[in-house]
Parts: sequence; C-alpha cells; structure tokens
Amino acid sequence: MITYPFTAICGQEDFKLALTLCMIDPGLGGVLALGDKGTGKTTTVRGLSHLLQDIPFVNLPIGATEDRVLGTVKLDVLLNEKRLEIQPGLLAAAHHGVLYIDEVNLLSDYLMDVLLDAAATGGYYLERDTVSQWMESRFCLVGTMNPEEGNLRPQLLDRFGLSVHISTPTDKALRMEIVQRRVAFDTDAAAFAKHFRDEEALLSARIVAARTMLASVKILPDIYEVVSELCIQHQVEGMRADILLMKAARAHAAYHGQARVTTADVDAIQAFVLSHRSKQTPGSQPSSRESKPSGAGDKEGEPKKVNRI
Amino acid sequence: MITYPFTAICGQEDFKLALTLCMIDPGLGGVLALGDKGTGKTTTVRGLSHLLQDIPFVNLPIGATEDRVLGTVKLDVLLNEKRLEIQPGLLAAAHHGVLYIDEVNLLSDYLMDVLLDAAATGGYYLERDTVSQWMESRFCLVGTMNPEEGNLRPQLLDRFGLSVHISTPTDKALRMEIVQRRVAFDTDAAAFAKHFRDEEALLSARIVAARTMLASVKILPDIYEVVSELCIQHQVEGMRADILLMKAARAHAAYHGQARVTTADVDAIQAFVLSHRSKQTPGSQPSSRESKPSGAGDKEGEPKKVNRI
Amino acid sequence: MITYPFTAICGQEDFKLALTLCMIDPGLGGVLALGDKGTGKTTTVRGLSHLLQDIPFVNLPIGATEDRVLGTVKLDVLLNEKRLEIQPGLLAAAHHGVLYIDEVNLLSDYLMDVLLDAAATGGYYLERDTVSQWMESRFCLVGTMNPEEGNLRPQLLDRFGLSVHISTPTDKALRMEIVQRRVAFDTDAAAFAKHFRDEEALLSARIVAARTMLASVKILPDIYEVVSELCIQHQVEGMRADILLMKAARAHAAYHGQARVTTADVDAIQAFVLSHRSKQTPGSQPSSRESKPSGAGDKEGEPKKVNRI
Amino acid sequence: MITYPFTAICGQEDFKLALTLCMIDPGLGGVLALGDKGTGKTTTVRGLSHLLQDIPFVNLPIGATEDRVLGTVKLDVLLNEKRLEIQPGLLAAAHHGVLYIDEVNLLSDYLMDVLLDAAATGGYYLERDTVSQWMESRFCLVGTMNPEEGNLRPQLLDRFGLSVHISTPTDKALRMEIVQRRVAFDTDAAAFAKHFRDEEALLSARIVAARTMLASVKILPDIYEVVSELCIQHQVEGMRADILLMKAARAHAAYHGQARVTTADVDAIQAFVLSHRSKQTPGSQPSSRESKPSGAGDKEGEPKKVNRI
Amino acid sequence: MITYPFTAICGQEDFKLALTLCMIDPGLGGVLALGDKGTGKTTTVRGLSHLLQDIPFVNLPIGATEDRVLGTVKLDVLLNEKRLEIQPGLLAAAHHGVLYIDEVNLLSDYLMDVLLDAAATGGYYLERDTVSQWMESRFCLVGTMNPEEGNLRPQLLDRFGLSVHISTPTDKALRMEIVQRRVAFDTDAAAFAKHFRDEEALLSARIVAARTMLASVKILPDIYEVVSELCIQHQVEGMRADILLMKAARAHAAYHGQARVTTADVDAIQAFVLSHRSKQTPGSQPSSRESKPSGAGDKEGEPKKVNRI
Amino acid sequence: MITYPFTAICGQEDFKLALTLCMIDPGLGGVLALGDKGTGKTTTVRGLSHLLQDIPFVNLPIGATEDRVLGTVKLDVLLNEKRLEIQPGLLAAAHHGVLYIDEVNLLSDYLMDVLLDAAATGGYYLERDTVSQWMESRFCLVGTMNPEEGNLRPQLLDRFGLSVHISTPTDKALRMEIVQRRVAFDTDAAAFAKHFRDEEALLSARIVAARTMLASVKILPDIYEVVSELCIQHQVEGMRADILLMKAARAHAAYHGQARVTTADVDAIQAFVLSHRSKQTPGSQPSSRESKPSGAGDKEGEPKKVNRI
Repeated sequence: MITYPFTAICGQEDFKLALTLCMIDPGLGGVLALGDKGTGKTTTVRGLSHLLQDIPFVNLPIGATEDRVLGTVKLDVLLNEKRLEIQPGLLAAAHHGVLYIDEVNLLSDYLMDVLLDAAATGGYYLERDTVSQWMESRFCLVGTMNPEEGNLRPQLLDRFGLSVHISTPTDKALRMEIVQRRVAFDTDAAAFAKHFRDEEALLSARIVAARTMLASVKILPDIYEVVSELCIQHQVEGMRADILLMKAARAHAAYHGQARVTTADVDAIQAFVLSHRSKQTPGSQPSSRESKPSGAGDKEGEPKKVNRI
Repeated sequence: MITYPFTAICGQEDFKLALTLCMIDPGLGGVLALGDKGTGKTTTVRGLSHLLQDIPFVNLPIGATEDRVLGTVKLDVLLNEKRLEIQPGLLAAAHHGVLYIDEVNLLSDYLMDVLLDAAATGGYYLERDTVSQWMESRFCLVGTMNPEEGNLRPQLLDRFGLSVHISTPTDKALRMEIVQRRVAFDTDAAAFAKHFRDEEALLSARIVAARTMLASVKILPDIYEVVSELCIQHQVEGMRADILLMKAARAHAAYHGQARVTTADVDAIQAFVLSHRSKQTPGSQPSSRESKPSGAGDKEGEPKKVNRI
Repeated sequence: MITYPFTAICGQEDFKLALTLCMIDPGLGGVLALGDKGTGKTTTVRGLSHLLQDIPFVNLPIGATEDRVLGTVKLDVLLNEKRLEIQPGLLAAAHHGVLYIDEVNLLSDYLMDVLLDAAATGGYYLERDTVSQWMESRFCLVGTMNPEEGNLRPQLLDRFGLSVHISTPTDKALRMEIVQRRVAFDTDAAAFAKHFRDEEALLSARIVAARTMLASVKILPDIYEVVSELCIQHQVEGMRADILLMKAARAHAAYHGQARVTTADVDAIQAFVLSHRSKQTPGSQPSSRESKPSGAGDKEGEPKKVNRI
Repeated sequence: MITYPFTAICGQEDFKLALTLCMIDPGLGGVLALGDKGTGKTTTVRGLSHLLQDIPFVNLPIGATEDRVLGTVKLDVLLNEKRLEIQPGLLAAAHHGVLYIDEVNLLSDYLMDVLLDAAATGGYYLERDTVSQWMESRFCLVGTMNPEEGNLRPQLLDRFGLSVHISTPTDKALRMEIVQRRVAFDTDAAAFAKHFRDEEALLSARIVAARTMLASVKILPDIYEVVSELCIQHQVEGMRADILLMKAARAHAAYHGQARVTTADVDAIQAFVLSHRSKQTPGSQPSSRESKPSGAGDKEGEPKKVNRI
Repeated sequence: MITYPFTAICGQEDFKLALTLCMIDPGLGGVLALGDKGTGKTTTVRGLSHLLQDIPFVNLPIGATEDRVLGTVKLDVLLNEKRLEIQPGLLAAAHHGVLYIDEVNLLSDYLMDVLLDAAATGGYYLERDTVSQWMESRFCLVGTMNPEEGNLRPQLLDRFGLSVHISTPTDKALRMEIVQRRVAFDTDAAAFAKHFRDEEALLSARIVAARTMLASVKILPDIYEVVSELCIQHQVEGMRADILLMKAARAHAAYHGQARVTTADVDAIQAFVLSHRSKQTPGSQPSSRESKPSGAGDKEGEPKKVNRI
Repeated sequence: MITYPFTAICGQEDFKLALTLCMIDPGLGGVLALGDKGTGKTTTVRGLSHLLQDIPFVNLPIGATEDRVLGTVKLDVLLNEKRLEIQPGLLAAAHHGVLYIDEVNLLSDYLMDVLLDAAATGGYYLERDTVSQWMESRFCLVGTMNPEEGNLRPQLLDRFGLSVHISTPTDKALRMEIVQRRVAFDTDAAAFAKHFRDEEALLSARIVAARTMLASVKILPDIYEVVSELCIQHQVEGMRADILLMKAARAHAAYHGQARVTTADVDAIQAFVLSHRSKQTPGSQPSSRESKPSGAGDKEGEPKKVNRI
C-alpha cells in the first residue's frame, strides 16, 4: 500500500512543523493536535513515518487492552514449557518511531499515565505475573483530540511538549487543491507518489542534518532572558514551558541550519509551547515579543504569519 | 428460506439508492438509516445481499461479545494441542459483503470504534492472548437507528459515509401496496420471487457494470468547484464531505452509465453526504446549488423530488 | 401435579383470546399482558400449555443467566473428553411451545434483544467458546408487566405482536366465583379438572381446526383498505401494525370458521394490535371503524363489548 | 445451647399468631415482620422452630452468595472424579422448616425473586454448569424489615402472605417483665426452659391437631361474600388477598378447633392479609366488618382487641 | 517491640472504662469510639490487649479481602493433594481477643454484617467452594469512626453495645503530660514500661477478679425499674438498651467488687449505652436519674463527673 | 544515567529542608508537596536518593496493581514446583529508602491506606493465597499533589508528617538560573555533576552526623509548653501535631548541630507540621510564637524568612 506523501499535504503547516521539530529533538515531548475531525491528521502522521523510512508508526487504538499496549506473557509458552516469556506490546513496538493516538482524550487515565511516563523516561517496566522487565520505548507521542468532546486533565495536557490547532480550511482554492490531490492519489497512487519523490528526499535529508548539528547550536544569554520574560508574561505554571521554549527554538534553528538561536526562532515556535499552558483565556493568541517573522528557510511552505489558536 | 426481493420493496427509494451506490464504490463508507422502527429496513438490506448473490450478509447483534465480533482462540485446540488457533469473528465473516447493525446507537463505544476502524482500513488486528493477526475485513457497513433513542457521538456519525431518513409512508395506496405485497409473499414466496426475477437480474447486472466503469468516469474542474462551494455553504467540519460528495457523485454517474460527472449527479446524492454533517439546524433540508432533478436513468423509481431529512 | 384448566378461568377473556390467536398463527409475535399483579396470569398461560397437550411451557425467570437461557458448553464433557458439546438452554426448550416471562420489563436489555430476535427469526445462534450453532426456537412469547414498575423501550414494545390489559375484577359476583373455583380446585383438583374435561377438549380441537384452515381464509381488497385507514388514523409508526392487524383478523376469522375476513374480525382484534402502538395518549381506547361487535362465535364467553385498555 | 422458649416471649402476640397460622397452613406464604430493631424477632422465630422439634431453622444472611443460597457444584469431586455433584444450598436446607431473613429489604433483587418463586412453587431448579436439578424446598418464609431503611417493591411485598407490625413496648411493667425474663434465662437457661416445658408441649400439640383438621373445616357462602366485600372495600390489587383471607381464616378456625369458619375468624386475621396490600394510606388500620373480637380460645394470650397497623 | 502501657494513657478515661467493662463481660457487644483522629485510640486498644497477656489483638484493615477476613481454601493443598483445607481468617484469629477496626464506617456493608453477626453469635460459617465450616469467633469488637466522614446505618450502630466519644484535650497541662510521656516512651521504652509494671499487674488482676464474681452480683427489682424508666425516657427503639444497661451496670459493680448493682452503677455506664441509641438530638447528654457519682473504686482515675456526649 | 544533583536545585528550599529532616528522623512520617505542576519535584526527590548513596528510590505509579505494590505469588514456581513463593512488591523495595508518589490524591483509597499503614508501622502483611508474610518496609513517603485536582481525605492528609507548598518562581533571575542550570546539565551532565560534588558530599555527611546525635538532643520543659500552646492556638485535631512539632524541631536542632532544641527550631519547622492540620482557613499562614528566624547554619540557602502557606 502506497502512503500519501508528507510533502503533498496542504493546509497543515503548523502540524507539519511541530512534527518535524520533534523528529529533530525527540526530547520535545510530542505533539497534541487539537481541532476539527476529518482534516486528515492521520494521513499527515502516517506520511511523516514513511518520509523517515526506518521508523515505526504505531497507531494505538483507544480501546486497546493493557496487555496489548504494554505486553503480556506468552500463553502457549507458559502452557507448554511452563516458563514466563514476554510478548512486547505496542509501546515497545513504537520504540524509535511515532506513537499515534486518535481521540487521545478518550484514552483511559491509566494508559495515559503509562504512556506519558514512558514518553518522559524512555521506557517502562512491564510488570506481569512476577516478571518485571524494563522495555525500551523512546517515541514521539502524537495525539489528536476534539476539544468539544471533553478535555484532558491540565496535568496531562502539560506533558505534551507542543500543541497545534487544526481547523477546516475556509479558502475555496485550498479546498479544491486538497480534494484534487486526494482524487489524483486515489486514481493512481504510484504516479502521485513519484511526483513528490524529490521533495520527500530533500526534507528527509534536511531533518537528518538538523539532528546532527542540534547539540552545537549556541544559545546566548539574551535568549534566556527573552524566554523567561515570555513565560512570566503568560503566567505559565511550573518551569516546563521555559525549558521547552528553549529546546524547540534550538531545534528550529537547527532545522534552518543556523549556528545560534535567534529571537525569530523563539517567535516561530512559542505558540506551540505556550498555547496549551498559558493561563490567559483559551483561544487568545499569545503575543510574541517581536512580531517579525522568522526570516529564513521558508521554502517548505510555512506562512510568514502563522495563524495559531 | 426465500428472501424478499430487493426490487419488490416499495417506499424506500433513498435507502435503496444509497445502498446501491455503496455496492458500486465500497469506499463510500456505508449507510446510516435513521428513522421509524418497523419500516422493513432489515428486509431491504437482506434483499440487497441476496441480489448480489456472492456476497455475505452478516447481522451483528448489538449485544454480541467482543470474542464473537472479532474472533477468538479455539478453546478445544488449545486444550488438546496446546497451541493457539484463531476462530474468525463476525467482522471477518462480513468480508466482501454487508455488515448490518440494527439500533447501532446502542452498540458499545468500543465495538463501534473497532467497526469503524475496520470499515476505514479494510481490516483489523485480532489481538488475543499474545496472538496479533491481521484479519481482512472489507465490508459495506449499514446501520440503523431511531434518533429518539439516543444519538451517536458526532465523531462516529461523521464516519458513516452516507445517511438516509426513512419514515412511515402516509399515502394510503402505498401502504396497501406494501401490505398486499407482504401478504402475497407470505402466502406463496416462490411465486412472488419468480415475478421479480428479471428485475432482480437487471439491477444486479447494472451494478456490476457500474463498478467496472467507475474508475474511468471523468471529473471536470467545475464539479470540484461545485463541491467545494457546497461544503463551504453548509459549514461542514473537515474535508471528508468534500471527498465523499465527489465519490458518491461519480458512483451515481457510473450507475447511470455516464462518461462524466454532472452537477445533476452531485445534486442527486448531496443530501446523503451532507444531511448528517451540516452545521445547520438538524432537520433542515440542505439546499442544492441547482434544484433541477437528476434527469437520467430514473427507471428504478427514484422520485423526481426526493424528500429527505 | 394437576393444572388448573384454561377454560375454568374467569375474567380474562381478552388475554385468553389473544393467546388463542397466537396458537392459531404463531407469526403474530406473542402477547404482552399489562396490568395488576395477582390476577392469575401465570395460571392462565400454564393452563393454555396444558390444553394443547404436546407443547412445552417454559417459565423464564428474569434473573436467569445467559448460559441458562441460551445454552452452554457441557463442562464435564469438556473436562473428560476435551471436546465441546452444547447443553441447550431455555429458549431451545421452548421450541414449538410457550415462553413465559413474568415482569418482562425487568429483564436485561441483552436477553430481551436475544428473545425478540429469536421470536422474530425462529431461532438463534448459540455462540460460546468458538462454537456457533443454530438453535431452532419457534415459540409464542408471552410477557407480563406492571406499567407502574417501569416501561419497555418503545422499540421493544413494538415487537410484541399483541397486547392486552388485565385489571382486578370489581364485580363482587365474579370475585366470589373466582375464589370459589380456586378453593374448589385446591380442595379436590382431580374432580375439578374432570368437570372441565369436555370443554377443554372442544377448545383444543377448535384451535387445531383453525390452524389447518388459516392459509385458505380469503382477504378481499376492502379489508386492506380498512386496515390502512385504521393505521393512518392511529398514526402508528412503521408498517408492522398494518401487517399484524391483517394476520390477527385472519386468525380470528379462522377461529370462527369463516371463509373470509370481515370487518368484524378486524374490529375484534384491533385493540390487541393498536393499543401499545398508537401515538394517541396512552390509556385512550382506540376507536374502531365500526362499533358493532363481532357477531359470530361468541360461545366462548367474550363479552359483546370488550372493555380494553 | 438452650433456646429461649416460644411461649415465654412477651409482647409479640400478632407475630406469634401469624407464625402459628403459617405452621398450620404452609400455603399462607410466610410472614413479613415490620418495625423496630432490637425487639427480639430472631429470638421469636428461633423459638418457634424449637417448639416444633423436627423442623429446620435456617437464618439466611443477606450477603450470602448465590452459590450458598442455591447450592453449587462440589469442587473437589469435580477435580478428583471429573464429574458434577451438587452441594445443596440454604434454600434446600430449609425444606419443611423456616427460612428466616433479617433486613429482607436489603437482599438482592435476584435472590429475592428466587426465594419467592421457591416459596410459591415448593422448590427451584438449581442450574449450574449444565446441571439443572429440581430441589425440593417447601418452607415458611419469615422476613423482617425496618420500613425506615427502604422498602420492598410492591410486587415483592404482595408475595408475602401475611404481615405484622412490631413496635417497642411502651408499658413499663411489660418492659420490666421482658428484661427480667431475659436475665433469668441468661442466668440459668435450663431452669427457665423447664418452667415453660408444659406450655410448649401444649402449644405444639395444638398446632399439630389444627393441621390435621384443616381440610375438613367448612366455608359457607356468606363467608365468601364477607371476604369479597372486604377486598373491594380495601381496593386491593389482584385476587391474592381474597384467597389468602379465606385460607388464613380457615387456619384460624382450625387453630381454635372450630368445624367451620366464622366472621370472627376473618376479623381476627384480616389485618395480617390486608395491611400491606390496601391502597389506603399506609399506617391506617383496616376496619373490620364486625368489630366484635374473636370469642374463642384466647388462652394463649392474644389481647381481645389486637392493636395492629 | 514494647507496647505502650494501658495504664500510662492519659485523657481517655471513658474509652478505657468501656473497654474494661467489655473485658469483664464479653456479652456487652464491643465499643464504638467516636471522635477526633490522632488521639491515640489504636495505642489504647493495643495497650489493653497487652495488659491481658493471653489475648490476641487483631487490627482489621478496612480494605481487607473477604478471603482474608473469613478464611479461604489453601491453594497449594488443593493443587498438590486435591482436597479442600481451610486457612482461618482474621475473624477466627481474634477468637478470645480484641478485633479492632479503624474507620469502621468505611468498612463494606457485607463485612460489617458478617462481623456483627459473628460478634452476636460467637462465630460464623465459612462458606467456600462447597465447604461450610463453623469457625469459633468470640471477640470484643472495637471500632473507631469520625462522624464527620459518614455515618453507620442505625441498624449497625445499634449493634455496638457501648459507645464513647473521644475529643482532643484542650487542657494545656494534660497535653504537655501526653507529649512528655510519649517522648519518654520513645526515648527509652523499657524504662518507661517498667515504671508502669505494678499498675498494669494490679488492673489485670482486678479485671480477672471481676470476671469471676460477675455471675453472683445481685440485681434487685428497683434497678429493673430504674433501667426501664431510663429507656422509656430516652425513647430508645427496641429492648436492647434495657438489657445492655443492666449488664453494663452489673459489670461495673463487679469491677468495683460490689455484691449488688446500685443506681450509681447504672449512672456510671448509662451514657455508654444510651448516647448512640437515644432519639433525642445527637450531642445532647442523657440525663441520669440520680446525679450523684459512683462513689467507689475511683483509684484508676475516672473523673468524678464524666463529661460524655 | 547521571542524576541531577540535589544541591544544584534552586527555589525549593522548603521542600529540600523537609526532606532532609525526614532523612534525619524517619519517624517524621514523610512529606506531602502541594502545588504547581512542572516545578521539578521529581528531580528533587530523585536527587535526594542519589545524595544518600545507599538508599533505594522507588517511584510508585498511581495505576500500579496491588500485586505490584505489595508483592505476589511467583506463578512459574507455583506451576512447576506447586509451592507458594513470594515476589516482593514496590513497598518492600522501598525499605530504608524513599517511596515517591506523584499525584498522590489520585491513588486508590485502598493502596493509600496500605501505604500509610506501612509508613506508620514499618511494614505490612502480604496476604495472598493463604500466605501471610510480614514484609519489612520502613521508608520515607513523599507525595505530591495539585490541590486544584481534588483533595485527600482529612484522615489521610493528617498522616503525612510534614507538608510544603511549592509554587512557580516569579523572579526572573531565578527562572533564568533554573533554565541555564538545566540546559548546562543536559549539555554535559558529567561536568555539571562534578561541579557540585563537594557540596553533595558535605550535605551527605551533615545528615549522617545529625542522625547520630538525634537521640542526645535535649528538650527542656519550656519547649513542651511552646508546642502545646501552638497547637491549642491552631485548634489542631488530635495529638499528632504536638508530637511531630517536637520531633521535627529536634531533627532541625540536630541538623544544625545544637545540643538542645530552641524555640527557633520550633519556629523553623512549625509550618511544615501545622499548615495542613490547622483548622484556620487554608492558605492562611500560621503565625509563630516568635518571629525571629532560626539563627544558625543557614549556609545551605534557606531564606531567612521562609514564605510558607
């Protein structure tokens, strides 16, 4: 089955940028996509995992049993050989890849906690029938939810590193483009995919390069000050926003091949970090310190003035 | 047991057309029939599966256990041979056929999610006791519900491709015709079925032909524009309505043997796609761009002016 | 243990007639008896099953387990012979007989659905531990309920073919007669039963005769018209009432040995079909097209003017 | 352990009479004792079972498992011999004796239904693991409840044959007598029991005699008329009250050695039958047709004018 | 581990007296201690069980499983020897000792019922897997609860024989004494315990002596009259209060070595029996017939005028 | 994996002091940290356990099963060797260390009770399948909770010895310091840790010294008086606050190497003990008897005037 190319997706620039940053720095803690149903979020995430050819894509159904998510004891081995052997679960299968959960707000609290713990610590103890085994599980957690269908506890919301809002396009030309691309893909998937092959390869290489240079990107003291002021201004709770702003800005700088973080990088990513943490009324747009757009590397299609939340 | 012929059914033209379109393009995502109890919906769906002789008809009871729906481990094989073997469930049995669920709004959320996922992706992973096996399951999902007995979550409603409203006929002549046909069938089912044999064969052949030519039906840019305008006008959420309108119109064109989609095709099927997605007040009828009826191929009995929702 | 004779029962003429019609045409879908507790409904149904000597009478307790109702796997066979064998349940035991449920509104929704499905289709699939076996189960479903203790969902109410209302007699002479008969029976059951032997044999023979001639009873078009008008007038939902009115009237005609259905037959049974389906305010009596009573065959004691609902 | 003698109990004359009548005619359907906690109801019932030396006394705890109440499969036999064997439950143990349930309104609905069915039909089917075995279980059901702690469904209330109200004595002399007897019994139980030996033997013999003559007690038509009028006057639902009044009056007549039932007998027992069935406001005393007291056999201590609720 | 001495406890004179009376006459039915958390109730009860060296002290956790409380089948014996063997539970372990339950109002209703039944009858049937075995279980039940965290059903409240109220001391000197004793004990438990050795031995001997003479303590008629008047005055429900007042007064007399019960004994213990049974507003103090204090044996530190609720 | 040093943590002086006191006297009963999410509480506790090199750190997930928390039977040993063997749980693993529970208010009541019982008594009985084994489990319990997400029952709240409030820093310089330290640690953890090695060793040694001298610290009578007055003034319930104030003040004195407890010690720790026990409105600050700060040993960074809730 041929996957819809990541670079062929129109009208989800924020979501694509946030996902890309998480691919560059997995420490950013995943993306929560809020917004309308039927906007092709699953297609986007599946496209991303295909772009980076060697990473697994795990779609975790919200009704999955704990056994399936965490792993379990192999019943036939137990019966035949009377010893305990572990069957790894979906969490372990997502190691080094993307773990995708649609309607994440409907997941049981218990599994949510386990997921976020694993996302934070890079693994989990599988505890079954007296076996306690550490399972490696470093993944980029991507969740979607429709805020009209219930919310996450603030405690859990805070543990998604980034968030984006996705709404139905209202521009007729964009809608026609989306439908035409989808019909073209459905008519001849191979031809469609071939058309985007070069663009896919280019983006993939750029992400790999950014990952490599990430550690060497410099952060000067004025950037620390910008970030602290921003968090105080938005009255965020705790220190997580400060640290994530810094890391996301650094990943953004690396993505654009910069040697050091600029305030433009902070500006480009601040809504991803702050929109679900700000104590201001939800829906209000966090104002950035400087309103000039990030001036470099906009070839991938980010709008100059991103319209967030 | 002789099945009541699909072509002998009176007074359910919308439901019959929507089912027929789904037989032509299974990608349309099934039909949700809303409305009065006791109007013979089950008879219609069973008639359809008999019309297309080689397809299974699975009636999924809303209280079915997960084991029965998805499949399970064969207990006797496990006991005797100490190995795990899968017994496929109703979902797998419906592969290439129709999966019918009466009172679908009473189904548990979990099974509903699994069904819709399978309907969307063409199968599901059966996960039982450390076995994880992909089960092929491509089916046309048909659900019925009485809106007075509780609703589906909008999220689930949206995942049924088409919907129709079925109400009790108020025309005396039509009622008498329905009762007389039923009594005639109950009196001598064989003679009754024989009377409709040719009509059944004709419709069956026409559906097969439409399936074959579906891929070659042309869609010109003006149709894309019509569809986008329609969706913007109805303020639908997401892009699913745009894509389904296009596909349903194409299936309608193929059903009538047309080489290309016309606005009349869009007009004929728009209520099926939009009535359960429009943000307008429920019960209001979506107005079509052009009110002239679809002018071709009306031999099967669609009323010129379909009275929907 | 000697059973109280069906023909010795006083003051339940509607209930007795409705049961008799269902014995003549099992397709009528059973009887729901609404009304006061302590009026001897169980005695009546048990008497009926004894009258028709070869039919089983199954009293289904509302707390019965699913295993007991549907059947189950024989545990000892499984343990000793390691194969699955089915133990049929109460539903299968009621095949060709009467399935009686006291306080049917307290039955779990799931069992209710299974029962009504079996009543509609003549059997059910027993699905247990990978076994899926069709169990023949054609029965006359008789339920009782006290409307003061909660209602059935309209969906379920509609699936009982007929309904009758049973109230405590207020006539002193009738009450004394009931108590005296009961005391006489309790004093010497054998002598009491002997007294009614001929009457029992006569009614039994008459039911068998009616069954035989049922298929040959004619229905002329004016009767179809009467029935449709009646249903439109009562604003019933769906077409089930139309079909049941026709069948019940035909069974009534056969019971009285008539060659064709008359409006008097429709008149005699319409309250059984319409009282629980009419959208008029509950408790109001459905008015019949013609108020003249059914003029024939009243020997069994139906009051000329049946006081229903 | 020595049991407190039945005849030594003070201040519960109604309860003692109702129990005695049920011992004479088990068809009366048991006694429901309503009222204050701590009034020694358990002591009374236990005393009764000791009085009639050969009958079992089973105290059913309201939290008893279904297995314990109905019986179960013997696990060790199943494991060792791989066959099913039944361990009878408390219901079967109460056969031919008294089944006592304290706080009967807290019993689960399911067990309540099973109990009342068994009480009505003289046994029950034990259905476990494919075994379905008829268990003989004829017992006198005695329940107690405090109306302030929740009620029984009317449906269940009606199935207790008789009811009595027990309140805390307000007479100082009576209270002192009760405490002194209790302390005397606790001090030297053997001496205390010896003191009541003759009285116990006398009452026991009298109950046995009444049982023997019960069937030959005559009921003349005027008594039927009295009973019917009484029930119409109290607007009872159903015919159960009529039948129970007749049977209780007959047992009362037998208890007093009479050849036929008199209106005085009806008068003496009517509150037992009617107080929990009358549609009059609860707490009001049903007025008897004749207010003259039952004139015979009052040696056992019934007050001339019984003060019932 | 050295236990804090019972006689070293300050400020809980009521609780200590009520416990002592229950040690003298186990038929008093246990003590319910109501009031503030953190006042050392557990220490007091544990001290009591240590004082009477040969009695078990069982602390029943409110979340204990039924298996643990009542006993269970030994799993390894079942597996290896295929026979059922009982592992006694906490209830049986408390036989002849103290069963202590902290926050008794949070215990499940079912376990509460079992406990109180066992407390009343001196044992219980362990019913597990077809085994039904009588377990001896005579214990002094001691429960604590904070009335602010939910109440016991009146039915259950009534079955605790005695109750006391424990509040935080408000006297500074008493508080300092309590803290100093606790610190002294924590600093050198052995030295502290040694200091109270004689006092412990004295109290222990006195309780044993009171137990021995209990049966021979005389109760004259005027005491019966006092008790009955008291109960009528307080409008208690049932006769339990009358009997318990008499027994508690007798135990109190025995504790003080008296040959007969005096009104002073009744006065000393009436609040223990009446405060949780009186229909007067809770919190009001039951007035005693005579307000003169119990004049004898006050060496252990009961205040002359006990301040009870 | 290198742990973030305890002494490198900024802005949590109260939490660090309270944890340190519990390390000196484990009898203090643990710490409850209330306040904002995302303030690095886990890092602090993990740092503490690393500081004291030989103690275990157990992070108990709130969704952990009872089996995992308490221990369980080894299934493979049971199957192969048919004997019961215990697998110790997380509680036992925390013996002599720190048991940390994030969002402790979401823990099930049952596990909460078990934890607090174990914390109070130094162990617990593991009761599984007829095994009842005492597990040593002395640990410092540390819980965190956000009061906006639901509260603990007062009963449970009271059983945490100490509590502190942690809020997000509002000082820009402090925030920048925190972020810079975190980034520095993330950049080169080894270098960062080396920078704090001496400070870590110093604090570790100081805690060990304080533990040793704890028992010899003197408490003079005036301190007892101060403590009692403080508790009376705050209207605390029970005597626990009195005793904990005394012990915490003693630990504080030992931490500063003093030979006797001073009022300054009481002053320094009173908010830890009283803030969650005072009956004054929550959020109000308990006033100390003397407002002069603790004058000694402030090198570690306690602010002179601690701002507590």
